[in-house]
Amino acid sequence: MDAHTKLKPITPEEEAALAELYADFGTEHLMPLWTQIDDLMPKHPAPKAVPHVWKWSKLYPLAKRSGDLVPVGRGGERRAIGLGNPGLGGRPYISPTLWAAIQYLGPKETAPEHRHSQNAFRFVVEGEGVWTVVNGDPVRMSRGDLLLTPGWNFHGHHNETDKPMAWIDGLDIPFSYQNDVGFFEFGSERVTDYATPRFSRSERLWAHPGLRPLSGLQETASSPIAAYRWEHTDRALTEQLLLEDEGQPATVEQGHAAIRYVNPTNGGDVMPTIRAEFHRLRAGTKTPGRREVGSSVFQVFEGSGAVVLDGKEQRLDVGDLFVVPSWISWSLQAETQFDLFRFSDAPIMERLSFARTHVEDAHR
Amino acid sequence: MDAHTKLKPITPEEEAALAELYADFGTEHLMPLWTQIDDLMPKHPAPKAVPHVWKWSKLYPLAKRSGDLVPVGRGGERRAIGLGNPGLGGRPYISPTLWAAIQYLGPKETAPEHRHSQNAFRFVVEGEGVWTVVNGDPVRMSRGDLLLTPGWNFHGHHNETDKPMAWIDGLDIPFSYQNDVGFFEFGSERVTDYATPRFSRSERLWAHPGLRPLSGLQETASSPIAAYRWEHTDRALTEQLLLEDEGQPATVEQGHAAIRYVNPTNGGDVMPTIRAEFHRLRAGTKTPGRREVGSSVFQVFEGSGAVVLDGKEQRLDVGDLFVVPSWISWSLQAETQFDLFRFSDAPIMERLSFARTHVEDAHR
Amino acid sequence: MDAHTKLKPITPEEEAALAELYADFGTEHLMPLWTQIDDLMPKHPAPKAVPHVWKWSKLYPLAKRSGDLVPVGRGGERRAIGLGNPGLGGRPYISPTLWAAIQYLGPKETAPEHRHSQNAFRFVVEGEGVWTVVNGDPVRMSRGDLLLTPGWNFHGHHNETDKPMAWIDGLDIPFSYQNDVGFFEFGSERVTDYATPRFSRSERLWAHPGLRPLSGLQETASSPIAAYRWEHTDRALTEQLLLEDEGQPATVEQGHAAIRYVNPTNGGDVMPTIRAEFHRLRAGTKTPGRREVGSSVFQVFEGSGAVVLDGKEQRLDVGDLFVVPSWISWSLQAETQFDLFRFSDAPIMERLSFARTHVEDAHR
Amino acid sequence: MDAHTKLKPITPEEEAALAELYADFGTEHLMPLWTQIDDLMPKHPAPKAVPHVWKWSKLYPLAKRSGDLVPVGRGGERRAIGLGNPGLGGRPYISPTLWAAIQYLGPKETAPEHRHSQNAFRFVVEGEGVWTVVNGDPVRMSRGDLLLTPGWNFHGHHNETDKPMAWIDGLDIPFSYQNDVGFFEFGSERVTDYATPRFSRSERLWAHPGLRPLSGLQETASSPIAAYRWEHTDRALTEQLLLEDEGQPATVEQGHAAIRYVNPTNGGDVMPTIRAEFHRLRAGTKTPGRREVGSSVFQVFEGSGAVVLDGKEQRLDVGDLFVVPSWISWSLQAETQFDLFRFSDAPIMERLSFARTHVEDAHR
Repeated sequence: MDAHTKLKPITPEEEAALAELYADFGTEHLMPLWTQIDDLMPKHPAPKAVPHVWKWSKLYPLAKRSGDLVPVGRGGERRAIGLGNPGLGGRPYISPTLWAAIQYLGPKETAPEHRHSQNAFRFVVEGEGVWTVVNGDPVRMSRGDLLLTPGWNFHGHHNETDKPMAWIDGLDIPFSYQNDVGFFEFGSERVTDYATPRFSRSERLWAHPGLRPLSGLQETASSPIAAYRWEHTDRALTEQLLLEDEGQPATVEQGHAAIRYVNPTNGGDVMPTIRAEFHRLRAGTKTPGRREVGSSVFQVFEGSGAVVLDGKEQRLDVGDLFVVPSWISWSLQAETQFDLFRFSDAPIMERLSFARTHVEDAHR
Repeated sequence: MDAHTKLKPITPEEEAALAELYADFGTEHLMPLWTQIDDLMPKHPAPKAVPHVWKWSKLYPLAKRSGDLVPVGRGGERRAIGLGNPGLGGRPYISPTLWAAIQYLGPKETAPEHRHSQNAFRFVVEGEGVWTVVNGDPVRMSRGDLLLTPGWNFHGHHNETDKPMAWIDGLDIPFSYQNDVGFFEFGSERVTDYATPRFSRSERLWAHPGLRPLSGLQETASSPIAAYRWEHTDRALTEQLLLEDEGQPATVEQGHAAIRYVNPTNGGDVMPTIRAEFHRLRAGTKTPGRREVGSSVFQVFEGSGAVVLDGKEQRLDVGDLFVVPSWISWSLQAETQFDLFRFSDAPIMERLSFARTHVEDAHR
Repeated sequence: MDAHTKLKPITPEEEAALAELYADFGTEHLMPLWTQIDDLMPKHPAPKAVPHVWKWSKLYPLAKRSGDLVPVGRGGERRAIGLGNPGLGGRPYISPTLWAAIQYLGPKETAPEHRHSQNAFRFVVEGEGVWTVVNGDPVRMSRGDLLLTPGWNFHGHHNETDKPMAWIDGLDIPFSYQNDVGFFEFGSERVTDYATPRFSRSERLWAHPGLRPLSGLQETASSPIAAYRWEHTDRALTEQLLLEDEGQPATVEQGHAAIRYVNPTNGGDVMPTIRAEFHRLRAGTKTPGRREVGSSVFQVFEGSGAVVLDGKEQRLDVGDLFVVPSWISWSLQAETQFDLFRFSDAPIMERLSFARTHVEDAHR
Repeated sequence: MDAHTKLKPITPEEEAALAELYADFGTEHLMPLWTQIDDLMPKHPAPKAVPHVWKWSKLYPLAKRSGDLVPVGRGGERRAIGLGNPGLGGRPYISPTLWAAIQYLGPKETAPEHRHSQNAFRFVVEGEGVWTVVNGDPVRMSRGDLLLTPGWNFHGHHNETDKPMAWIDGLDIPFSYQNDVGFFEFGSERVTDYATPRFSRSERLWAHPGLRPLSGLQETASSPIAAYRWEHTDRALTEQLLLEDEGQPATVEQGHAAIRYVNPTNGGDVMPTIRAEFHRLRAGTKTPGRREVGSSVFQVFEGSGAVVLDGKEQRLDVGDLFVVPSWISWSLQAETQFDLFRFSDAPIMERLSFARTHVEDAHR
């Protein structure tokens, strides 16, 4: 359908008049809908972002080379390398809403404190020895942990060890940038507390199943839990599969266990713009193709398998990341037991009533 | 103020006319407000229920004698002995809204399955060896555990051991009775599953801090967690006091740690009508006098101390229960470290906007 | 089922021991569940309250006689005559939760100001000339209007005319009394503002469809609209029936239009404990039998017909009131176009998750 | 702050290594944060969009010329001319989230039916004679009315008269486009109902103050009211100023009346992404400077005055539109009584917890 063609005038006089009209539109900062509606309002989401896989085997060495060449400190703030969606014209956006990066901190290094409106988390695919200090609360970062830094919390990181450590960061930077919502403030050049406790104060106060401190009865927009530990995630997934073995309802679908990380003050997502989940597939499981409004990023945590993105199968190993743009079909295939961390912009889609999901018929 | 007197007519004729009017009111099932308003609408809550302490040292032996004399089974359903508030005229109500009972199950006994609209929980002050089977899910009952049976869940109990076990039951029976909301259905004469797993399926699915199964994303009126284990409660309270020692905000007030048991699907109370909490006071702590709209029941779990109820101090030992009627001042005094379980009708008061609290000035 | 009988011991020794046990229970303020469970936890709501009809032709003359004999003023506060459910043992309760009364104010009389936790409304079946002053805002009371006095708002009434006026009051007095939630405070002996504006300030600020003042963006527990005017109610019902005539979905069921009065700050009920609705049936309409948890009161506003309460048909004329206790079947039959005001405790039932409805098959 | 400079390596070898690193980043679709953080995460919102005023005296004639030259029909769908923010690089976006356009429909013309995920409204600054048919419900469009077309409602327009009509459209097209949430479907080539009733069925069912049809008790994401009529808006604003004259709290600030259009099912915004308000200033009123996160568009409905945008005063006449990008200071000055319609993306900001407001001290 070419609306413009269809609406083309017949006579040269009309053509000239139309050209003049469009010129006058330009002068007055006006643009006709009728020539643009096909692009602006497609039949279904037509993302410029494309599905893409980043191999950890490429990412980690590049992060390491950065560690050798680029200092970390005030100004640059973080040695974080963003994954740029090939479809998004060179912007450091993994999707229109989400930022994903590998962050690398050398032995004994400190990333200085700052805070910003953007919501952030870190997920640790390997390593340990770094503490992130969130509003003065030192939070250990270890393999399999999800660490939150909701908007406007001061935070800095420091590496206590003689070895470097890398992890992934997830933020809503593209969304915030696009919609002009972000504030930013520098904090301390060094982190405010170099203690290295096993558990943060936030966990000690909040990470007890089904219990809430009486001193914290207000609902908060983001989760007060700074660290979601791997041992809990692993146990929850293990139990789901055991329950399935026992014939009990527990998994999302046969062979597919999954948890959502939530804010204990309301049972909802950990932060207003970002959903975080962890998925475990039994070896041999294939999930049906799914299309969802909104974009997601997965990282393989353990095991191997493949993802079929928009019909194209791509092999996945530990650490590999991939992005699923809006309304692109995705399906997972587990070669071994297959563990994947996932984050997405689903809270945006749900809170604004744009969410839709289509699950393809597995039997076709 | 005596409205009736004040309004009394002057002449004998008027008096006769008034008597006739009141008689006609009676015939037509009418009652004047003006003679009753002082009672019906007091200046502040004027509960008929009175503050009262029940000693565990009296309760337990009576429960044991019941165990010897009264069988448990279909019809009587439960060997539960309700605590009747002395002010409530012989009704088995510990307060206008709440039922509290000691329940006793002999060696190898089974209490048959049934379900009802009334919300119920059990709290275990001592002992172990009983499993309560909630909608087919066997739930171990051990010291310090809170076990939920929200409205309309089938449930029965069985004692696996050669020793009796007793615990307390809390329900909203008076509220349900008064307001005509209750349905009741018999289930199996024996419990449907005599397995004795260490953890119920509900815990395995739900009791992971800050994690929610993807198969359970709907908000539910009551908590899906059947058992809140003592080890978690104890750890949460211990951490609060340690954090206080470290100068961090964590406790309700100096020396007073407390948690609320919550529904992980929304962060709110475990059941629509009943709030459950656990309080720990350091030795020597005295809480300020508090008045609250709505009624509460406390049970001492560990330690010793006293409660001041409406100005009268009463000593408390392990297992003792006391009720605080609406707007009666209460204050706790800890001789040793002092652990108390509490339940109340606060969700009713809050959901219906009747909640009010007054904390007395500690320095008066 | 007679649990007590079933559990009766066999030997005289056992009988004596049991009697002693029960005596000791009494001493310790304990009551066994097993002898009481049938009454306490019935198979379905078994209200002590009974369905009952009060005839306006009886009520109004009695109210008038009260006007001649009983002064209105500080102490008695209101010349309100409560409808006492014949099943509720002489208490001035139309149901376990609700109070309904006819209130009568003579020419030029003033009912003094006071406030209380109890939520109140007035509905005017006939007459005009009284203003109720709610927190200083004079609110005209006219035929067909619903006037709100949510908990803790000062209010008094005054009659501007030379004629008496009567209306009905609805409150949650029994619920408040039973659950000890009520506070009460005297205000001015005379109303604070004797102005007689056509519209209250609350209406001028709030009663515009779909519009909210920017100065009032907080959600409030009760509606900020003091008066719901008959002209709006009548028009809404008229439109529903016209839309039905046009084949559009608009009515609850064929021939049955109905509106709920709502709080514009959240779309929910006007007050936390009381629901108010207005129903209009076309002549000839019969509604299917309905059972609901919770109690309702209806008043006929216009037309004539009948109600079938628990299988018993009773004729209704203008002004007649009837109560439907919990789980009692009710069905309306319209002889003429039939207009009824209804109020109920449904918000209590819904907020506490006790609500259930059963609609009988119309074709049986 | 120039992070890149600061981090520049010292030796030529390092420089070469760094260049190679950045080249390898490019190959792997990676972008360093440290060179981009200043732009990506500014100290406060730094919108590319600029404040801008469009004069109705320019817009309307251009729309009229389009009417003469460009047909309306399937394909182009609408004769809508979008206001393109001069800062947004030629995109037809008035702000990063919002689309605003003038739409023009000639005598007897029909704009065909379609539906889309994008939420839309129309506001009529002058004229009448067009009906918009929303899901089969014909809705009259007249001066001062706000007409809603929430996402996924079929809608088309037709002009009944011999005169053209123009109005403004507001949508969340840029937000939907940017975040890939949109679906689009064609409907009927002609509108499905050419009736021209004075009131739409939606108004007849829903536009009664404080009343809700019992047939519509579910909360809906968008308002069920299709038309918010000028007479109600005008009356609400008039009353606010009268109440202010009487010394009552009613206005936002002295001399500034305002209403928000709301969804009667929950009291919240009319649609999930768009807030709509109407403001009236008394002659002579100046509002304090305000900065808000998120963007707004105003249209002058009546009167004259000025707006100060980011310190620059611009005169405004009837029909003029202006955009306030995120965190740009704005202040209104009323020469005459000054009426302005406003819409914004505030629901997005609030639902995602990005909202912030700063009101400048009026006395500086």
